[in-house]
Amino acid sequence: MKKIRLLTPGPTPVPERLALRMAQPIVHHRSPEFEAVFSRVREGLRWLFQTKEDVLVFASSGTGAMEASFVNFLKRGDAVIVVDGGKFGERWTKFAKAYGVNAVVLKCEWGNPVEPAAVERALRENPSAKAVYVQANESSTGVYHPIEQLAKLTARTPAILVVDAISALGAMTLPMDAWGIDVLVSACHKALGLPPGLGFLAAGGKAWKLNESADLPRFYFDARRERDNQRKNQTAWTPAISLVEGLDESLKMFREEGLTAVFARHERMARAARAGMQALGLTLYSKSPSAAMTTVLAPEGVDSEKLVKHLFKEYGIKLVGGQDAAKGKIFRIAHLGYFDDFDVLVVIGAVERGLHDLGAKVELGAGLAAAQRSFAEQR
Amino acid sequence: MKKIRLLTPGPTPVPERLALRMAQPIVHHRSPEFEAVFSRVREGLRWLFQTKEDVLVFASSGTGAMEASFVNFLKRGDAVIVVDGGKFGERWTKFAKAYGVNAVVLKCEWGNPVEPAAVERALRENPSAKAVYVQANESSTGVYHPIEQLAKLTARTPAILVVDAISALGAMTLPMDAWGIDVLVSACHKALGLPPGLGFLAAGGKAWKLNESADLPRFYFDARRERDNQRKNQTAWTPAISLVEGLDESLKMFREEGLTAVFARHERMARAARAGMQALGLTLYSKSPSAAMTTVLAPEGVDSEKLVKHLFKEYGIKLVGGQDAAKGKIFRIAHLGYFDDFDVLVVIGAVERGLHDLGAKVELGAGLAAAQRSFAEQR
Repeated sequence: MKKIRLLTPGPTPVPERLALRMAQPIVHHRSPEFEAVFSRVREGLRWLFQTKEDVLVFASSGTGAMEASFVNFLKRGDAVIVVDGGKFGERWTKFAKAYGVNAVVLKCEWGNPVEPAAVERALRENPSAKAVYVQANESSTGVYHPIEQLAKLTARTPAILVVDAISALGAMTLPMDAWGIDVLVSACHKALGLPPGLGFLAAGGKAWKLNESADLPRFYFDARRERDNQRKNQTAWTPAISLVEGLDESLKMFREEGLTAVFARHERMARAARAGMQALGLTLYSKSPSAAMTTVLAPEGVDSEKLVKHLFKEYGIKLVGGQDAAKGKIFRIAHLGYFDDFDVLVVIGAVERGLHDLGAKVELGAGLAAAQRSFAEQR
Repeated sequence: MKKIRLLTPGPTPVPERLALRMAQPIVHHRSPEFEAVFSRVREGLRWLFQTKEDVLVFASSGTGAMEASFVNFLKRGDAVIVVDGGKFGERWTKFAKAYGVNAVVLKCEWGNPVEPAAVERALRENPSAKAVYVQANESSTGVYHPIEQLAKLTARTPAILVVDAISALGAMTLPMDAWGIDVLVSACHKALGLPPGLGFLAAGGKAWKLNESADLPRFYFDARRERDNQRKNQTAWTPAISLVEGLDESLKMFREEGLTAVFARHERMARAARAGMQALGLTLYSKSPSAAMTTVLAPEGVDSEKLVKHLFKEYGIKLVGGQDAAKGKIFRIAHLGYFDDFDVLVVIGAVERGLHDLGAKVELGAGLAAAQRSFAEQR
C-alpha cells in the first residue's frame, strides 16, 4: 500500500468537508440561492482580509488576480516599482512588459527579503511611481517580505502598495486596513484549502482613485465592473460555482477556528519545521522565513530534485523542490492550510528518511524530536 | 419534499461520476500524474472539437475564452465584423470597445439568425476586416447561426471566423477542421456537464498567422504561451485542477456514448421539446432553433419571469426566463449535457403544470403526448 500525501505549498490538501460540499448538485448562479451563498462568502472574505473593502472574486488562478492588480490601476507608460525576489516577483516585470508599463525592478538575491531602505530610495528616485508591487510570501523561496514597513513607506507617497498574498493569506496576519495595504491579491488553493480556480482582489480608496484614470485595456478582469456586480451578490461573468460553494465552507472552517488561532497554528508549525530541519544539520534557505512554508538547502552532495522524486516514488509523499535558480538545491516544506502539528511530523519524518535513503548523514529521529520539543514549548 | 432539478442551459446538471471524480484528493499540477490526465484531456478535446489543432484550456469562465479569441489575433485599430443577435453577441462589441478594435456590428433582431448575405456584404464593404465573430448558439435567444455557411464566406477572404460555441460544443456538430472554423471557443459547464471554471480555445493556421502580428496586450490569456506549455502537458498558470480531472471523466463519458450518438440525442430532445411546446399552443421564439435549448414565448397574459419563479418555488424546478429585451417574454428550456428523453418529459410537464397554475389555457398532457410521439418517430 502506498498512501498518497500532498504536502506542497499550493495546491494544498482539500479538507473532506470542502470536497463533499463541492460534490453537491450545482446551483444556478443567477438565483437567490447562489446570492445568499455569495453574500456570506463576501462577508467572510472581508473578515479574512481584515478589511471593510469589497473583496472581488474572479474565476481564475492567482495569476489572473495579479493581472487584475495591474490592469485596473495603471496607465500605459506609468512607472512602477517591483520587488523581484523569486519566480513570482519576476512575474510583475512580465506584466509590466506585456502592458507597456515601466518597471523599476528591485532585485533581491533569492532567499532574501527586500530591504525597506531600497524601496524608500526607489520611491524617492521615482517620485512619479504609481505603485510598489511585492509578494507577502514569495513561494519560490519561502521569503516573507516586510509588508507592514513597506506600507508605511508607500503611505507617505502617492504610490499604492500592491501585495500578492496568494500563498500568505490565511497563514499570517496581513491586516489590510490597519497596515494600509492598498491592493491585496490572493487565491483559493493555498491556506483556504480549495482546488485552484478562484482569484481574489481587494482595493482601498487610494487604489480606487487610481482606477478612475487607469487606461490599460481590460474586460474579463475589470475590477470596477465586478465591484458593481458583486455588491449585488452577483458576478459579471459566470462564477466558478462549485469553488464558491467550497469557499463558503472553507470560510466557515476558518470562523470556527478563529483568525488568531489560525495564524498561531501556522506560526507554531513553521517554528517546529525550522527546528526539525536545523536539528538535522540542514540550513534554512529563507533569510526571512514565512509561516506558510519552510525552505531548506539540501545537504552537500544531495540533489533536492532527487530527494523529492524519491519521496514520492517510495512513499507517496509529495514535497516540492526548487524552481529556476534554486532547482536541485532546495526543497520546500508546506505547513499551509489543512495542516496540523502531526502533518509536520510526517513531513519531517519523510525528509529524515529520504535523506537517509540517499546516503546523507542525518540522525534519524533528531528532526522529529526537535519538532516535538518546539511544539511543547509553544503550548 | 421538494426535489431540486436544475434544467437550465448552463450551468447544467453535473453527472454523479464527475462530482465523485472531482471530490478525489487533489493532485499536484506540476507532476507526471497530472500530465498524464492533461494529455488525455487534450486528446479528448481535439476529438470533441473535431480538429487536429491544440485545444487550449484556461482557468476561466467562457467569457475569458472569448477574451482570448480577441486579444490573441488582433491589433489595435483593426476592423472586425461582429454578429450581434443577443446578449452574447453584444459582448463582442464590448470587447472591441475595451481593446480599441473597430467593430462593424451586424445586428440581428432577437430570435433571428444572421443572414449569410449580410455577412458577405459586410466582408465586401470591409475588405480589411480581420475577423468575423459569431455565436454558434446564442444562449439568450436559442438561435443557431449558420456557421458552416459563414465559414465558406470567410474562407474566401483574409478574415478569420471566430465562433463562440460555449453552449453549442457537444450538443451539435461543429467540425472545426472540415468546415474551416478558424477559432473555436467553448467552456466546460454546458454540454460537458461540469461546474463552471474552464474556458477552451482552438485556433487554426490562418488564425495563428494573425497571432504573429497581433499586438493587443495580454498575459493571463496569452494563447501562444499556453500552446507552448500545453504541448508539454502543462499550463502556463496554475490550472483549475479538480475541473480538469472532471473534464477527463466527462470526455470519457462522451467517448463511451460516441460523438454521433451525443449529437443525435441532443437533436432528438430538441425536436421533442419543440413538438411539446407547440402542442401546448405556444410559439417558439427562435427562428433557427438549436439542438442545445428551446426558447418559447410565454402565452398572452403570462409573465415568463413569474412562471420561472413559480416553478422553482412550488416544485424546485429551475428553468430560466429571458434576458434584457426578452425578459418577461420568453422562457428557455435546456436539453444540454446530462439530459435524456425523460428529463425532457419533466421539463414539458413542468411547463404545462406551471402555465396551468398561472391560469393560462393549456391542455394538460398535450405537450407530453406530443413529445412522446416525437421520440417514438425518431427511434
